Amino acid sequence: MNGYRDLRVALLGCGSVGAQTARLILEHGEELASRIGARLTLAGIAVRDVTAKRDVDLPQELFTTDAERLVQGADIVIELMGGIEPARTLIMQALQGGADVVTANKALIAAYGSELSDAAEQVGAQLSYEAAVAAAIPILRPLRESLAGDHITRVLGIVNGSTNYILDRMDRFGDSAEDAMRVASELGYLEADPTLDVEGYDAAQKATILASIAFHTEVPVAAVYREGISGITLTQIEAAKHAGFVIKLLAIAERITAADGVAGVSARVYPALIRRDHPLAAVYGGKNAVFVEAEAAGELMFYGAGAGGAETASAVLGDLVSAARRHVVGGPGIPGSLHAELPILPVGEVNTAYQVMLDVRDQPGVLAGIAGILAEHGVSAASVEQSVAQDQAGSAALVIGTHVAREADLAAMVAALRASDMVLDVTSVLRLEGNA
Amino acid sequence: MNGYRDLRVALLGCGSVGAQTARLILEHGEELASRIGARLTLAGIAVRDVTAKRDVDLPQELFTTDAERLVQGADIVIELMGGIEPARTLIMQALQGGADVVTANKALIAAYGSELSDAAEQVGAQLSYEAAVAAAIPILRPLRESLAGDHITRVLGIVNGSTNYILDRMDRFGDSAEDAMRVASELGYLEADPTLDVEGYDAAQKATILASIAFHTEVPVAAVYREGISGITLTQIEAAKHAGFVIKLLAIAERITAADGVAGVSARVYPALIRRDHPLAAVYGGKNAVFVEAEAAGELMFYGAGAGGAETASAVLGDLVSAARRHVVGGPGIPGSLHAELPILPVGEVNTAYQVMLDVRDQPGVLAGIAGILAEHGVSAASVEQSVAQDQAGSAALVIGTHVAREADLAAMVAALRASDMVLDVTSVLRLEGNA
Repeated sequence: MNGYRDLRVALLGCGSVGAQTARLILEHGEELASRIGARLTLAGIAVRDVTAKRDVDLPQELFTTDAERLVQGADIVIELMGGIEPARTLIMQALQGGADVVTANKALIAAYGSELSDAAEQVGAQLSYEAAVAAAIPILRPLRESLAGDHITRVLGIVNGSTNYILDRMDRFGDSAEDAMRVASELGYLEADPTLDVEGYDAAQKATILASIAFHTEVPVAAVYREGISGITLTQIEAAKHAGFVIKLLAIAERITAADGVAGVSARVYPALIRRDHPLAAVYGGKNAVFVEAEAAGELMFYGAGAGGAETASAVLGDLVSAARRHVVGGPGIPGSLHAELPILPVGEVNTAYQVMLDVRDQPGVLAGIAGILAEHGVSAASVEQSVAQDQAGSAALVIGTHVAREADLAAMVAALRASDMVLDVTSVLRLEGNA
Repeated sequence: MNGYRDLRVALLGCGSVGAQTARLILEHGEELASRIGARLTLAGIAVRDVTAKRDVDLPQELFTTDAERLVQGADIVIELMGGIEPARTLIMQALQGGADVVTANKALIAAYGSELSDAAEQVGAQLSYEAAVAAAIPILRPLRESLAGDHITRVLGIVNGSTNYILDRMDRFGDSAEDAMRVASELGYLEADPTLDVEGYDAAQKATILASIAFHTEVPVAAVYREGISGITLTQIEAAKHAGFVIKLLAIAERITAADGVAGVSARVYPALIRRDHPLAAVYGGKNAVFVEAEAAGELMFYGAGAGGAETASAVLGDLVSAARRHVVGGPGIPGSLHAELPILPVGEVNTAYQVMLDVRDQPGVLAGIAGILAEHGVSAASVEQSVAQDQAGSAALVIGTHVAREADLAAMVAALRASDMVLDVTSVLRLEGNA
């Protein structure tokens, strides 16, 4: 193993991912060196409080509180602190010093990915963040490199394990929403603030990153249309099952054309119906998967663990090896700049199909009246069924499946249904995704 | 778009993948140039007979029969002729001339991948063949790059679309083996010589390539243990379904430890039982998928089209863009050399579980006798059930599920069962895979 040059690696942060990353670097040193053609030297691990790491089984002399100094002179900086600051400033300092940077920080990349990528490109450094979306699953590299000669048209991701776990328990075990949420919480699946998961904020950050990689376009998190799963009931799950669907919280990035002919990007997060024979339907428990549609490649799916210390560290190591090889080989990093800059189109421009469940007055002429409301909005029904359950005397439950139409027209149709005095209640509105 | 240098691309072969590849290069020229930082010039397309390409909608002046001359002076050579010769000689000439080579030729890579990789490495050129396994699915790049800091322990692949189509029809539509085969043939799913698909030869070539990438070890095709699906009956499929399994033809590459403690690699192809909630069970029709288990990353799966002109061309283009970027950036290609060279262990050293179906004499003491045969071979039963169907008077059908044991012991147990006069017939022997 002699004759290898050393590459100094600075690790920022030592939570569960950081500690696993450090262990892999230390334990696999010889093997990594032979794959890279250089030896990785872990120069130090920056933490807030060195004494708090006394029980961590890593060489204690590696710990330091001086992150800035650690970053100076590093060839590769791995940022696993999370949060915006000081991560952002330290990454900027690292890039400006010519170091490559690997990070798993989705919040940071969702908010400042474009700025940081530009900084990396200016100095020819590499910024990589495979672990920021769907942890262990190699998805950003395949999107950016393997599909580099293709045109991606749509990305549908199950990218939040907690909400997938909750929906899956409801679907497969018949748990109520409350019970499923309690179990997820007990298992540690939910973040300290569960609304980040349940209301789709976490998925929206990942939708931003997926959209930017798939379409070379900066999509601010604020431009991601977002609905969470807090309104999803067991009744909806069971009706979906009855109709051959499963409900999944999807992060979607799609190339769409607006009604006025403008081509652009839509990024959105919502619970949607997926056919049970769609590959995404078989993503159970806390697993993640990203389904990709491309013009030439057709349908692809990437499946695996979306969280976990070791799992995330695996993706970090992949980026680390890639950055280290670049140091050995020379040449600039793969540019991550967002050169396309397509317009971001509002959710109203999306073409989708709705499944709407209604309680209506059980009297003559109601079906014709409902059909009239659909027609007024340019929406045609693919199916109309009296639903399994009948709520109360004098009322009937209807399930309407529409053909594909513009979201804006569908939403207006739902508003008109709600306002109609034939309709007692609109009990569920869900979109169909995945080419139902 | 001025100021870009030109990279000369030579295309060898113009079947369905070749024609699609040429079209993508010509149609996406501007966009590819901006992604690469250089312009790709299609210098020519070598074909056996130019006049046979008169109806192909590509510029006719590109066609040539002089492949050798086309290769000379090319920066990147794309080989899509198939077969061993002249592909092998032309690729060697290209590499020795310093060109990068992209190929989709699984037979060639399975037989000569190691030799060609070494030749590429000697001159610092890049040899890539993402399209050779599972066509459109990015699998080799993730195995080699994204998991470069991890330890892969097992790869389970559905890598032959024809056999997956046949087994899926039997499972989901209740087709007999003959009917499913006939439909697959009518749809053009089967190769001219269907034994290549049905007897697992095609899958064995892909197992070789997957094993070499996952374990950095050369595995000759002849060392791949191979069973096809020709013996699989609808009765077996239905018994599997009844027990919560589905039968899939798997190409398996696994890091195993032999009984004497030697660590090595097993590569094998056979139809196996997979639990219905395993991600591979939801791979329907002619689709492919590769399930990967790694120490840190855990379980990953890569899913998509395993054949098709456009789909395969997408993977070829990904490799092309990567090779072209390397030309722009400089530096040697990513080494593909097989530095680990673990021993290849025979199938007898594999640890697996069996499901065995037997017709036995319906008389007292038979169950105890069967249990005795298992125990003699160090095999313990996980389940023993009287099967759904009873064949004839005086006989009973048994289904025995074993715990995990050495394949050699399991095979000896089956031989002993066959030889026993309590046993009228051994009607099915299948292995369980995917951590049942």
